[in-house]
This record gives sequence, C-alpha cells and structure tokens, in this order.
Amino acid sequence: MIFSSDNWAGAHPAIAQSLVTHASGYASAYGTSELDRKVEKRLSDVFERDVAVFFVGTGTAANSLALASASRAGGVAFCHREAHVTADECGAPEFFTHGSRLKPVDGKHGKMDATRLEAEIRRYPLDNVHGGQPMAVTLTQATESGTVYALEEIEAIAAVAKAHKLPLHMDGARFANALVSLEATPAEMTWKRGVDLVSFGGTKNGCWCAEALILFDLSKAHEMHFLRKRSAQLFSKSRFVSAQFDAYLEGDLWLDLARHSNAMARRLADGIAASRTSRLGWPVDANEVFVILKSDVAAKLREQGAVFYDWPVPHDLAGSLEADEGLYRLVTSFATKAEDVDRFVAAC
Amino acid sequence: MIFSSDNWAGAHPAIAQSLVTHASGYASAYGTSELDRKVEKRLSDVFERDVAVFFVGTGTAANSLALASASRAGGVAFCHREAHVTADECGAPEFFTHGSRLKPVDGKHGKMDATRLEAEIRRYPLDNVHGGQPMAVTLTQATESGTVYALEEIEAIAAVAKAHKLPLHMDGARFANALVSLEATPAEMTWKRGVDLVSFGGTKNGCWCAEALILFDLSKAHEMHFLRKRSAQLFSKSRFVSAQFDAYLEGDLWLDLARHSNAMARRLADGIAASRTSRLGWPVDANEVFVILKSDVAAKLREQGAVFYDWPVPHDLAGSLEADEGLYRLVTSFATKAEDVDRFVAAC
Amino acid sequence: MIFSSDNWAGAHPAIAQSLVTHASGYASAYGTSELDRKVEKRLSDVFERDVAVFFVGTGTAANSLALASASRAGGVAFCHREAHVTADECGAPEFFTHGSRLKPVDGKHGKMDATRLEAEIRRYPLDNVHGGQPMAVTLTQATESGTVYALEEIEAIAAVAKAHKLPLHMDGARFANALVSLEATPAEMTWKRGVDLVSFGGTKNGCWCAEALILFDLSKAHEMHFLRKRSAQLFSKSRFVSAQFDAYLEGDLWLDLARHSNAMARRLADGIAASRTSRLGWPVDANEVFVILKSDVAAKLREQGAVFYDWPVPHDLAGSLEADEGLYRLVTSFATKAEDVDRFVAAC
Amino acid sequence: MIFSSDNWAGAHPAIAQSLVTHASGYASAYGTSELDRKVEKRLSDVFERDVAVFFVGTGTAANSLALASASRAGGVAFCHREAHVTADECGAPEFFTHGSRLKPVDGKHGKMDATRLEAEIRRYPLDNVHGGQPMAVTLTQATESGTVYALEEIEAIAAVAKAHKLPLHMDGARFANALVSLEATPAEMTWKRGVDLVSFGGTKNGCWCAEALILFDLSKAHEMHFLRKRSAQLFSKSRFVSAQFDAYLEGDLWLDLARHSNAMARRLADGIAASRTSRLGWPVDANEVFVILKSDVAAKLREQGAVFYDWPVPHDLAGSLEADEGLYRLVTSFATKAEDVDRFVAAC
Repeated sequence: MIFSSDNWAGAHPAIAQSLVTHASGYASAYGTSELDRKVEKRLSDVFERDVAVFFVGTGTAANSLALASASRAGGVAFCHREAHVTADECGAPEFFTHGSRLKPVDGKHGKMDATRLEAEIRRYPLDNVHGGQPMAVTLTQATESGTVYALEEIEAIAAVAKAHKLPLHMDGARFANALVSLEATPAEMTWKRGVDLVSFGGTKNGCWCAEALILFDLSKAHEMHFLRKRSAQLFSKSRFVSAQFDAYLEGDLWLDLARHSNAMARRLADGIAASRTSRLGWPVDANEVFVILKSDVAAKLREQGAVFYDWPVPHDLAGSLEADEGLYRLVTSFATKAEDVDRFVAAC
Repeated sequence: MIFSSDNWAGAHPAIAQSLVTHASGYASAYGTSELDRKVEKRLSDVFERDVAVFFVGTGTAANSLALASASRAGGVAFCHREAHVTADECGAPEFFTHGSRLKPVDGKHGKMDATRLEAEIRRYPLDNVHGGQPMAVTLTQATESGTVYALEEIEAIAAVAKAHKLPLHMDGARFANALVSLEATPAEMTWKRGVDLVSFGGTKNGCWCAEALILFDLSKAHEMHFLRKRSAQLFSKSRFVSAQFDAYLEGDLWLDLARHSNAMARRLADGIAASRTSRLGWPVDANEVFVILKSDVAAKLREQGAVFYDWPVPHDLAGSLEADEGLYRLVTSFATKAEDVDRFVAAC
Repeated sequence: MIFSSDNWAGAHPAIAQSLVTHASGYASAYGTSELDRKVEKRLSDVFERDVAVFFVGTGTAANSLALASASRAGGVAFCHREAHVTADECGAPEFFTHGSRLKPVDGKHGKMDATRLEAEIRRYPLDNVHGGQPMAVTLTQATESGTVYALEEIEAIAAVAKAHKLPLHMDGARFANALVSLEATPAEMTWKRGVDLVSFGGTKNGCWCAEALILFDLSKAHEMHFLRKRSAQLFSKSRFVSAQFDAYLEGDLWLDLARHSNAMARRLADGIAASRTSRLGWPVDANEVFVILKSDVAAKLREQGAVFYDWPVPHDLAGSLEADEGLYRLVTSFATKAEDVDRFVAAC
Repeated sequence: MIFSSDNWAGAHPAIAQSLVTHASGYASAYGTSELDRKVEKRLSDVFERDVAVFFVGTGTAANSLALASASRAGGVAFCHREAHVTADECGAPEFFTHGSRLKPVDGKHGKMDATRLEAEIRRYPLDNVHGGQPMAVTLTQATESGTVYALEEIEAIAAVAKAHKLPLHMDGARFANALVSLEATPAEMTWKRGVDLVSFGGTKNGCWCAEALILFDLSKAHEMHFLRKRSAQLFSKSRFVSAQFDAYLEGDLWLDLARHSNAMARRLADGIAASRTSRLGWPVDANEVFVILKSDVAAKLREQGAVFYDWPVPHDLAGSLEADEGLYRLVTSFATKAEDVDRFVAAC
C-alpha cells in the first residue's frame, strides 16, 4: 500500500526494455541522433505544431530553464502559493534566473485565481524600479493539490499574462494525468489556451528519467540550447532519454498509464468518501487524493503497511479540521494495484 | 569504424539490463533508497574510506558542483588550457560558481605543469582585491589529450594546491581508463595523492547516464546536498542511476570495460605508428589516440566509413605539422571491436 | 512642506564642506588612505570594539553584501513582510546572494515578531533539501513603518537567530534615528544584543552618499573585501566617503541631526493627534509619521504645497480606515524646519 | 612627485564646490530631480544625439552593467588581454553577467587587434553549444597602457563586432584624455564609429565619484533601469553625482583638465626620452607614461619622494629589457604640477 509518491514507482517494463533495445550500436551524441530526432518529431505531432524540444534530467530543471528564458533584472514570476517551483525546488528557479523572485498567488485547491493574479501583477508597475518587474507566470497542471485547471481557467490566466506581456509556463510534471482528466488534447490544454512553454514530464508517469521542456516559440530555441548546456543539463547519451520517450509515446502508452493512475485515485477517493472514518480534503481530479483522517486512524493504517505523507493544511481548509484530525496525501501511479487500493479503503 | 567519441556508444548490456531488473517495486525517492545506499557504500569500499556520494546527470554537473563547493567572491580556479571544464562546458562552472573565472595553465600533452600552476596562482596575491582570489585547482584524469597524470604528477600539483590552501578536484570523466592505465587503486590515484573531490564518471565507460561527485571531506556534504538540489540535479527516481552503478561496479565490470577500451586504443596506436601514412601526435595512455594524417588520407578514411573528429593543434605541437597534414582524434570505447580497429589501420 | 522622504534633502553644510576641505592633495586609493583609516578607527570607538568597516554606495549595497556574506545554496533569509530589502531593492539581495530567497515574517507596525520568526524558520528543517535552508535574519532599525525595536525586542530576535545558528543583520538606513529614540549606545543596540552585521547609513541623515557595512566578526572581513569589489562597490577615491563620515561623526553631529529629525516628527505627530481631521496610523518612534487622512484633506494639503506619499495599508490596519480615508507617510529630516511642520499642522 | 594613479588626486575645486552649492533645498530622489535631467540633457548635447544616461558609483559598475545588458547564456565577451575589465575588476563583469567569460585578445600597446579579434570570435561558432557564444566586444579608451585607439582602429573593431552582431562597449574611464588626444568630438569617437555603449568616467579626471553609463540604443534603457537598481547602483541623492557632472561639463572644464593631464604626461615623456638613464616603454598618447628604468634608478627616485607603481612587462615587450631594468607606470592627473614633473625628470 505505497501511496507516498508516484516517483516511488520504478519504470514501466516497456520503457525499461526500450533502454535495452537501444543499448547497442553507435549514435551521435548530445541530442543529435536519429532517435532523438524521431522523438522530437513525434512530440510535434503530439502538440499538433512544430515545437522545440529540450530533454533535461529533472522537472526542476525544465521549470527553471523555462523561467530562465523569461529572465529579467529584478524579475518577478507569479505562481500559486503552494506550487512545486516555490515549495520544493530549493531555489533552483531563483538560481537559474540569477536571483529573480517567485511571488505567491492565492487560489482554492492549488489553482491560481486569475483575478488575484491580476492584482499581484499590478503591484509591480513598470515605472517603479524599486519593486522589480513582472517577468513570467507559471501554473502547475495537474496542481500540487491534485486538482486540474479547466481549459477556461487556463485561458483566464493566459489572458492576464498576455495583457501584461508575460510568457505563460505550464509545469506539467503530471501533464498526462491532467490531460486524461480533462479528456483534452495536448494542443487544447496548452498553446490553444495561451501557454508558451511546457515542462513535459514522463518520470512520474512510468519513465525512469524523462523530462522535456517544450517551446512553442521557436525563436527562443537558440538561447535555450545555451541555457540548457550552461546548466549542465545536456546529456551526452541523449538517446537514453529519447528511448524512454519513444516507448512512452508509442501506442499512447503514456495516456493509458495516466488513465490507470487516475482511475486508481478515483477508486481510492470513492472508497474514502464512502467510509465513516475519513473524508476527502477537496475534490480529486487526477492521481492525488488528499484525505482528512483522525490521527489514530492514520497511525493504524501505517501500522498495516500503508505509506503516505502528512500534508500541511492549506489556508482555505484551515479551521475545518478537528483537533485530532490531520491532512494526508495519497498518490497513485501507473504501478498502483486495485487490490492495494481496496485493502487501504477496507482498512480505513 | 566509429571513433568519434566514447559517448557515441550506448550502454553495456549488463548495465541496461540492471535498469530492467530494478524497474519493478517501490523505492523511496531522491537518493534515499536501499539501492542508493548500497552503491554509496560500495563506492566507499572502492575508495577505501568513507566518502560522500552525489549522483548527478552529467560530468559537467559534477565538475561544476565541485567548483561551486569551493566558490569565493572573485574566485579563480586553475585548470589546463585545454581542459573540458574550460573548453566544452559552455560556462557551466562559471554559472554554478556565480561568476568565478577559470584560469588556463599550460603544460605538455594536456597536463598542467606544477611549476606553471604555482606561477599562475602567485599572480593572485591575497592582498590584491582587484585581481580576484584563487579558489580551486582542477585536473582532468585522463586528460582531454588522452594522456594520464602519473601519481607523482598528481602529487606535485596537490602540493602546490595545498600550499595555497586550495582544494584539488579531479575531473574523472575517464577515471577508469586512467586507473587501469596506471594500474593504481582509486585511493592511490586520488586522496592518497591529495585529491579532495572527484567527478566519478560512468557514462563514457558503458553506462547510460551515471555520474557521481565524490567528496572525501564529509563536512562538505551538507552544503552539497543543497547545491545539487538547487542546480536541479537531484533525481527523484535516483535508483535509475544506482542501478547502473550497481552493475558497473559488480565484479569489477568497470575496470574490464576500461581495459578493453584502452587495449583497443593501444592496438590502434601501434597500427598507426607502424603505418607509413600516419603518425601519433603524442603518446597514448588511455582510450584516445591523436593522429597526424595527410588531409587526403583522412578524407579517404572517412569515405570508407571511419568517423572521427578534427582536432585543434595544441601550442606544443604547432610547427611540427606539414601544410597538408591535420590532427585528428580517435576515441575507443567498451564497444569498440578489434576488427574495426584493424580495418582502420589497414586503411591507413 | 516637503515630507516625501529624508533622501529629498541634500547634505548638511558641514558634510558638504568636508568634501571641499579634503579635495586637495593626494591620498592612496581604494580605501587605504589615512582619512579612511581614521574614520574606521572612529567607528570602532563608536561601537566600543574593533569592527571591520566597508564603505559602499547605497544602503541596498550594504544590505545585499551583508546577506551575501551569509549566502548558502537554496538559502532563505528572514525579514519583516514590509522590510526595505524585500519591498524596495529590486531583487538586489537575491542577486547578490545568487538566488536566495527573502521569506516575509509578520509582526505589528513593521517589526518582526520573534515567535513568528521562530515558526517561519522551522518551516525549513535542515534535513529537507527541497525547501531550502535558513541562512540569515535581517531586521530594519528604525523600521519601514517608522517604529523602533526596543532593545529587548532585538534580543528576542537575536535569540531565535542564534538558536538556529543564523547571523543577524541590522539594516540601519535610519540607525541614528533609532539610536536617539532609544537613548541607547550603538553597542547596546547592536552586538550587545546579538547583532552580527550592521548597515550603517549616513545618507538619509545628512550625508550626500555615505553608507558603511560594519562587521563585528573580523574573520568575515577577508571575504567581504572581495565581495564588495566584485559587486563594483569599492570606490577609488574612497576619501569622498570618509570625508563625509569624518564630519558626520565629529562632535556627534550625526546624533544631533537625528535628534532634530525625530523632534520634527514628534511635533508633526503631536499636531496631527490634536487635529480633528486626521489621526496617526500607529505610534511614532523616529522620523516617520504615518497619518490617516480623508482623501479630500490630503488633496487640499497637496494643493497648499505639502509633498508626501500615499502608503499601502498594512495587514494589521486593514478595516480600520473609512472608505474616504487614506494612509499617508510623512518623513522629516535634518533639514526639516519647525515652521513647515507648523504650517502643515495648521493646514490639517 | 605622486605619479601612482590619477585616482590618488582629490577633486577639482569647482567640482567639490558644486556639491556645496547644491547641498541645500529639496530635490526628488533616485535620479528624477531637475539637476539630474539637466545633466542628462547636457550629455545628449555632448554626444550630439539623444542618449540614455545612468549614473553609477564606479567605472567597474558601468563596465559590468554594459556587459550585463548584452548577457547571454554561456556568453563570451572579448577584450584586450590587459584590459581593466579582466585584470582589475575582481570578476565583477562575470558576476553581473551571471557567469559569462572574458576572452583575452592580443594586440600591441594595450590595443585589441581587429584581425585577432575576428579570429577569437570565430572560435565560438554559433552551432557549437559546448564552447559558449559570443556576446559583446569591449575596448578601453584610453587603454590600460596609456595608448589611444585611432578613430580608424575603433572603426575596424566595430566592423568585426557588427559582422558578428555583437554590441561594442567602450570603457571610457579616461574618456576625456583619449578625446583631447585625438582632438575628436565625443560623437566621432563613439557612435559615429560604431560604439554602442560608453562608460563615461569623470572620477579619474577631477570628480569625486562621477561615472555614467551612456546608451545610444534607447530601447535598452528600460531594462538598464532594473539592472542598475538590482546591482545596488541607484543613488537616492542622485544629485550628488549630477552636481559633479554639472561643474565638470560646464565651460568644457572636463576637456581642460584632460588637456592639462595629457600635457603633463607629454612633458614627463619628453624629459624621460631625453634622459640617459631611462627610456619609454612605448609611445605616450594620454596621461600615462610607461618607463623602463634600471632598478637602482627607480629605487633612488622613490627615495627622493617619487611615488609610482611597478608594472608587469607585457608580452610584446618581453626580452627587450635588461636584467637590471624594470617597467614602471607614471600617471598624471588634473592636479599634477609641472614642477613635480620637472623634479622627476631632473632626478632621472
């Protein structure tokens, strides 16, 4: 009953096997091999337009490079208060952007509120050099709260960003989970709604280590080549990433894996909602379930082998927990088995 | 006849297979799994003392983080004029160290001369704030010229570094090739000779993507955890690296692969030395062969399918080439076949 | 009736004159002249211990260098939510510290609350690499709200900082105003209460451009020399700063100027408190008066020549203003005349 | 007989007096006062076109900000091997540009050779991400060797820079000395010859602390406002700089001071050339004289009160000194007296 994180799972057999398949033979290095090109082309198909693709080692790298490409002196990037970029990346975005700032924006269930975003941006008028200047907006899809922005919500945020001439980045560490949740196409969820750059994550959804930064504005690609290399993120044996993505995208494996993962979360959520000892913190859209449990129930579940994390209570939930209750996060993955979910629910 | 680079080869079957073996099951993320611990312990055995191990994605990352740990304001790091850190890392060391400088030091065949190193360091007296201050020395083993520092040469450089209280870093992208060339132990080639940090590379010697920064001074480990994460180099599914190293170190596979690679280079060098149309630029110590060829010979070899790079003529060789001659680099790897070597030599 | 800011005033005649006096003759450059040494010695007397003194061009430089000396990877510095470092320095502290973060701490009237500081620091446990690590605490004395930390309040904050092994920096852009407000000695207000570094500001109190970073820990001085020079803050004709400080400190001119400035603010505050159309936002400790006025009263005052800034309503005052009221900031300086204050009060 | 540096002199009486004149009264802060505007306008007149003016505290700041405005990832800026930016600014340009590199270019007597510049730039082809990318060219006028680029030499360098689409920066710490040496106008020496940014220095020529970065491309001004503030170089009492420049430019005082300074150097050079114990290292164009003396002569001169620095022997002079000879630098300034020059010459 491992619900600690989707990155506790290993790799899907087809993806690991692809690394064996491509292990022999020579291929030109640093992202110039045929397999690299094939995957890049495939991603252009996925997004229904020409995209520039940059493989990197971590989601943090993809996010930080996206922001680096928008970097300005005294720059301020706007993100949700609980976004991964600000909460869990140890200042990498600030380092990659030479000291810019991440300004938290509030909003329910992990989603930036477009109106509040507008208000926060207005705090940095361009003629006030003291405060700094807006430089980018970044949203997480699916969010750190396991919720998913509706297409209209993305559009509303993009409208604010565009009005201030700010690029809009999407942190898609759980891109596939959001996509199947919305039953949208990659194009619909991104550039058709005003997104300019995407961190396209494969690691949390069954890859070993496969992350790509996708640029829709090809004129930004030249500088990104240097930004990536300067950040020590250009792999020599680049095909170890493209081999993973090759299997990942083949036959829409990636969408199948995300569907499974989301279904397991749904099953978990339904079970919890029906139980007497636990309840959901907020609605479940993707593969993360936030549950309110009495502390002793949580302790007992852990005794029985369930693994999951305590989670800080967000502002908009404060006051709605009893003194003996806690908030906990359960994450499902491509590897989650229905029987483990059912055991957990039964144990609740 | 692919002699372009050892990173054009893929992965050794045992290493790729290890990624399949470890693909199933759950393991805690971010370098905390049992397999991660096992490999770290194994590396302590390899180095015959407790070491702190930091997996990263690229050799550039390992080198840049090593220098970052020695960073000072206005800092100057000393390296050979043709070292990888200064020639081929797109300013990553400078970026990771917030704008320090790499000062080139001369020396024959890619090896820093200890006397010249001393002279260069003395150009930065500590009471002259204008020039900046020395912060580190970094050497490459094996060097970019395919040569290997003798143990006494490392010791001489370490003595200079210590006299100026500077940490000594070894860029070991081809650590194994140097090691088997010297028939030394890892301990003898590093800390017993005064090396403080090692970039321990596996990628060029048969791994997909396996690099580790090794610290002998454990008191530096705390800050390095944050430096690595801040640089977006902490992998969530860390076992994808440890699984590679596990197979790499098992049964001394790494040394066998390096021995094979070096033997292929020796076979190539011997063949070239015996040929009438070509000669060696300088002695061959590891898995790189630098050869002087007439341009038309090089062209013909390429027509026959040989792949190798032109190489800039270093200072100490200038004037010794004829007008119609060029310098070329041939690199062998774990995957190089004797028949390809022999075909190349025959074609010379 | 200029109450916009104390930096709208020019320089005190004695200070400007000192620049004329020292204009002739030769003196060694870059902070090594006799006059530089004399002023440094004088500052050691002022602080009753040996201090290391670094002249810089702006308060922002002093603050940013102070934090730079405490810089860590993924570092987090703690300051009041409305502190100058975070509100008005355009990211200079983040730039100088290579991308660290300023974490806002709440507290009434511009003063960090020690208990909340403790809670914020605890959000960054040292074994959680993802969040980053605490690196420094910085307080402003007098605060951006014109209030002054009592000595016990400084001590309480220092106790929290020390418990977490964090250096404590004091932004003393209005150091003198705070000092005469407390009737304390410089030693009592700083190192005797646990402060480690001070930005000692002269510009706002009658100098042209005279700021100094004071280090009590002399072992940090070596690196600071390089940090300052690398930040382009080492003046060649350093005596243009020391000549100002020489006159500033002579005969305690600096304290007299601050006393005058504070007295003018007190006169303004008393007049406002006694008026029927206006009231104070919060108590006045130094040379800044925050006043709540009806918008039309503010407009009329401005018509009559009064110059002062609108001020954002802080959290702890929200809800206590009427719809037609605004918050305004009035700053007095060494140059403020009692008659201007009286005219303003009469006009209220 | 102080010939150590032009920054050992104080300030010209008219410039120091201007700070007294402008000490009283209020003026808006941060570069927005009437006097600031007046001086900016005056500088547009000086350069015969609209320019954007940014006052900063040091020449190092002006140079570093100029390069920062051209910053690219993995960027390489080209300068003469002995340029101030690379020899004497403690890595400030590298810090301000987030880790770019200064690539030394050779050339006689401190002047970059345009052909060699072209060759160096070509070492960084834009499709080779490993080496980094060219980002700017910076020349020093007058040079660190006291020589002055002829207008055609500037034009030749500008042509190379333009061909590679690189901005050309002029470090004009001794701008006035070069200008009167060439008998050219500021426009002719800068933008008419292809210069894009100028560090316009006043400090070495009779100001206390007056440096300005001049941009000819007004579209770069917005970002520069934030770059400057983020670098802690925006002065609150900005008029302390504009008051200096006001007097400096008034009645062409700046040109008179530079003419005097150059004339003193000429007198020194002529005297030395005529002496039997000393000779010039190379031609004298501005206010610096490099002289070759026997060590015992140098020692005797110092005994008699002459102050001047030893200077490292440049590459192109190596071998032309006797064993008992040394190279020394003598700098004249606005404050140098003919009698001191004559005493020195007589003592030679």
